[in-house]
Amino acid sequence: MSSTIHNISIDCHDTYALAGFWSQVFDCPRQPDDFPGDTEAMLLPPGGPEVLFIAVPEGKAVKNRLHLDLQPADRTRDEEVERLLGIGATRVDDQIRPDGSGWVVLADPEGNEFCVLRSAAERAASPATSAGDVDPA
Amino acid sequence: MSSTIHNISIDCHDTYALAGFWSQVFDCPRQPDDFPGDTEAMLLPPGGPEVLFIAVPEGKAVKNRLHLDLQPADRTRDEEVERLLGIGATRVDDQIRPDGSGWVVLADPEGNEFCVLRSAAERAASPATSAGDVDPA
Repeated sequence: MSSTIHNISIDCHDTYALAGFWSQVFDCPRQPDDFPGDTEAMLLPPGGPEVLFIAVPEGKAVKNRLHLDLQPADRTRDEEVERLLGIGATRVDDQIRPDGSGWVVLADPEGNEFCVLRSAAERAASPATSAGDVDPA
Repeated sequence: MSSTIHNISIDCHDTYALAGFWSQVFDCPRQPDDFPGDTEAMLLPPGGPEVLFIAVPEGKAVKNRLHLDLQPADRTRDEEVERLLGIGATRVDDQIRPDGSGWVVLADPEGNEFCVLRSAAERAASPATSAGDVDPA
């Protein structure tokens, strides 16, 4: 053992609003000591790691060089994409392959890109015929 | 349960070289099917989540809006910082507080910022007298 990932930090403008969006993504509660206007907010998603939202003055300028790839636990990829669009995500790109594998690129309310992969059940039921479940971009 | 974090993706120029650096950070082996020149490389750090390195044409332009905060498992923060500087990290900033809490900001060989926090043992032995173990920037 050397270093482990303690948490992922996300720079943003509105820590409380963005943590609220991601709390719905992960279906995990806000921390009781997080309030509007705070310079930080923390979430503890099931399975981890912790996600820390940090208020910064600068805006998002370019495509994020780090992003999260999400796997739905109890929905299909497409059901989860629809749910996330309904709570404030926007669609950035669609990398669904002809065999049904692949992923969808969404952005959170501050424009941070993330991907929604197929669920484990979908992969097991219909393995990709190409490298369609690995996010290459 | 809704979505969980399946992996963290990091855009880069040289997937094999960067995965090599991070394999030493996490003390986890390369995947046997990752080779120089590949467009992707994957690591499976102990404790998770997976980290996927993706080759992109564009270079890093601004401070990353997402970053990882690391916790040393079997070294102190300062010992781990020295180890990471020795394997190719560079020092970006020092947020160590007068009470010894706080963190150090490093960058990987492609300039991606990450922080090294105090170990769990250090925190237990000497709790912060301020919010010194939370990474605010």
